[in-house]
Amino acid sequence: MELITGVWQSLKAVRERAPLVHNITNYVVMNNTANALLAVGASPAMVHAREEVAEFTAISQALVVNIGTLSPDWVDGMRLAVHAARQRQVPWVLDPVGAGATRYRTATATELARHAPAVIRGNASEVLAVAGEAGATKGVDSTHSSEASLDAARQLASRLGTVVAVTGKTDYVTDGERMVAVDNGHALMARVTGMGCTASALVGAFLAVESDAVLAAARALAVLGLAGELAAEQSKGPGSLQMHLLDALHTLDEATVRARVRMR
Amino acid sequence: MELITGVWQSLKAVRERAPLVHNITNYVVMNNTANALLAVGASPAMVHAREEVAEFTAISQALVVNIGTLSPDWVDGMRLAVHAARQRQVPWVLDPVGAGATRYRTATATELARHAPAVIRGNASEVLAVAGEAGATKGVDSTHSSEASLDAARQLASRLGTVVAVTGKTDYVTDGERMVAVDNGHALMARVTGMGCTASALVGAFLAVESDAVLAAARALAVLGLAGELAAEQSKGPGSLQMHLLDALHTLDEATVRARVRMR
Amino acid sequence: MELITGVWQSLKAVRERAPLVHNITNYVVMNNTANALLAVGASPAMVHAREEVAEFTAISQALVVNIGTLSPDWVDGMRLAVHAARQRQVPWVLDPVGAGATRYRTATATELARHAPAVIRGNASEVLAVAGEAGATKGVDSTHSSEASLDAARQLASRLGTVVAVTGKTDYVTDGERMVAVDNGHALMARVTGMGCTASALVGAFLAVESDAVLAAARALAVLGLAGELAAEQSKGPGSLQMHLLDALHTLDEATVRARVRMR
Repeated sequence: MELITGVWQSLKAVRERAPLVHNITNYVVMNNTANALLAVGASPAMVHAREEVAEFTAISQALVVNIGTLSPDWVDGMRLAVHAARQRQVPWVLDPVGAGATRYRTATATELARHAPAVIRGNASEVLAVAGEAGATKGVDSTHSSEASLDAARQLASRLGTVVAVTGKTDYVTDGERMVAVDNGHALMARVTGMGCTASALVGAFLAVESDAVLAAARALAVLGLAGELAAEQSKGPGSLQMHLLDALHTLDEATVRARVRMR
Repeated sequence: MELITGVWQSLKAVRERAPLVHNITNYVVMNNTANALLAVGASPAMVHAREEVAEFTAISQALVVNIGTLSPDWVDGMRLAVHAARQRQVPWVLDPVGAGATRYRTATATELARHAPAVIRGNASEVLAVAGEAGATKGVDSTHSSEASLDAARQLASRLGTVVAVTGKTDYVTDGERMVAVDNGHALMARVTGMGCTASALVGAFLAVESDAVLAAARALAVLGLAGELAAEQSKGPGSLQMHLLDALHTLDEATVRARVRMR
Repeated sequence: MELITGVWQSLKAVRERAPLVHNITNYVVMNNTANALLAVGASPAMVHAREEVAEFTAISQALVVNIGTLSPDWVDGMRLAVHAARQRQVPWVLDPVGAGATRYRTATATELARHAPAVIRGNASEVLAVAGEAGATKGVDSTHSSEASLDAARQLASRLGTVVAVTGKTDYVTDGERMVAVDNGHALMARVTGMGCTASALVGAFLAVESDAVLAAARALAVLGLAGELAAEQSKGPGSLQMHLLDALHTLDEATVRARVRMR
């Protein structure tokens, strides 16, 4: 029950404080993640160039780094932003999209993971790849269940001193010792591109208002999962789901959070 | 009344002539601005590479330059396009997204502003930054009311011989002497990413059919604001607003324009 | 009748096999095409960097190359991916967006077309430009009817040993000898950006399950056209069309395909 009270408190805090969330993310989802951050009450900005990225991180309340459509120039920007985030103690989230699919992707994710992200958020295949396990992957979609990666997630979190969030049918968040499971969500969400990227962006917003990274990540995932369920109830397919999801993030109220969040 | 008659005339002209609007804009909003331009009746294209940008500007009826996700290669493309626009007398719009947030952004916006844009369209913080005033900003969202930037907007317009449009709760358009205010719009629009970018894109389309840049900008902002109001009436949140907005731009008719545009 | 039975069989195969479709496409439509591929049942990924593109093509079941927002770095990535596709016999689709509008665009499209795409999918102006005919174009929209390009399409297909699909009011697919026409579609689809790009992406998904490229392309275009018709029946404008289109791609059933596909 305390767990669920916290979900509402963090959502309320995001809406009241409208934290500036700096995103270096992929081309596919920039629009969605910006809209999801706005819908939840945060103030998103997408800034990637070497020339300005550190300066921008320094004025932000959280940083989200997503390697979905990486290239060397962008990775340079990511490095500078991460460096600035550590210096200024801005919490940051790593989304290792497609880690395991190519050597470049795995190497970049692994390198960035060493720079003290507050949270690493990925699907099971991505988490296995960052953990150094030979995880097969199919492009950017996971070929493993969340559960299959839990040992690796726990060990990765302990080794790097970070929090690892594995999303799937059930989402799991661990710092190596604690483990929170979130059962909200709907299968149709997997038919909309960038839902994982949106999860990572929302984790960033919640980190800006909640310093316990396990709680911040779990709450963000619960809010997204619940908004997805509410959206799915009104949707005929993935097109309408995406629209209703933004509406649900914007209108989600305390009673619904208390009645429907499933976290343990 | 004459002001409002002109709104409809310009919208009708955009629909009839379908001007080719060349956009160099940011990754976040490309899809939205292309769709808004199509919905209003224009023919959008996004072209940014040094290798072709000048050639493309030369066949266009308007150019829109938006620095939302700038980097050196893109700024080079912007410079070449602006140069071609001036040579061919293609009217162009500058959207100085996030000017004031970083030195790189402020410097780029200030440099481009000196190259005779027909219209500079920004929020109050951005306009203050381009005008050289120490305007605090929060990422890409304004921390000032439109009204707080009106003196700076007027002076900037006079100094550069351009038109400045400051958007916010009320939108203002000035050439340093004339000042037109547009009261259309809805608060929910600020919860959809890139609404300001869409405003700039529509200003481009209207400049292609109306040479008086004060009128072109004010009319475009009135059409967008009115479409936003119509959309908000049917929307439960920012997701549905975005969808209904495109529908409203597409279906907006003379009677609605005459009944509901509020311009002074 | 046999033609139409095949449409359903291929759609069913895409849903069952969920082929990984590697896209190197433009910034404007990445989100739409990823969502359309997910809605139809495929597994999309957008990967463009020289550092990983060949490795990614090698694990994919189809490759889609779209030059909508090209630049030299991206063209290098396209070349490497196309090379890998040929080596691994991964079928690939070329979408020569805006060919004819600038020399850079025409040259890039013409060069890529020589590397054995399974299908070239464009509007009439683009196909004329790739065929080397002096086709006037207006930005990225066609200034010709599909019919006006049929001779060029046939000759281009024969000369390159490929299949050419020209989309417009009626879509035509030819390998230089056979010619299949698809009459599905709706005028409102042209008011949504990237509908042609979505067509090319779906052709990629269908090539992954059907080796006869004429049939694969015609079936993909029929599915998209039919989904567009179904969407248009429920839409007030281009905003709602885009949403309903994704829902329709996701829910399209055998009875509707059999009743409404118009292919000859």
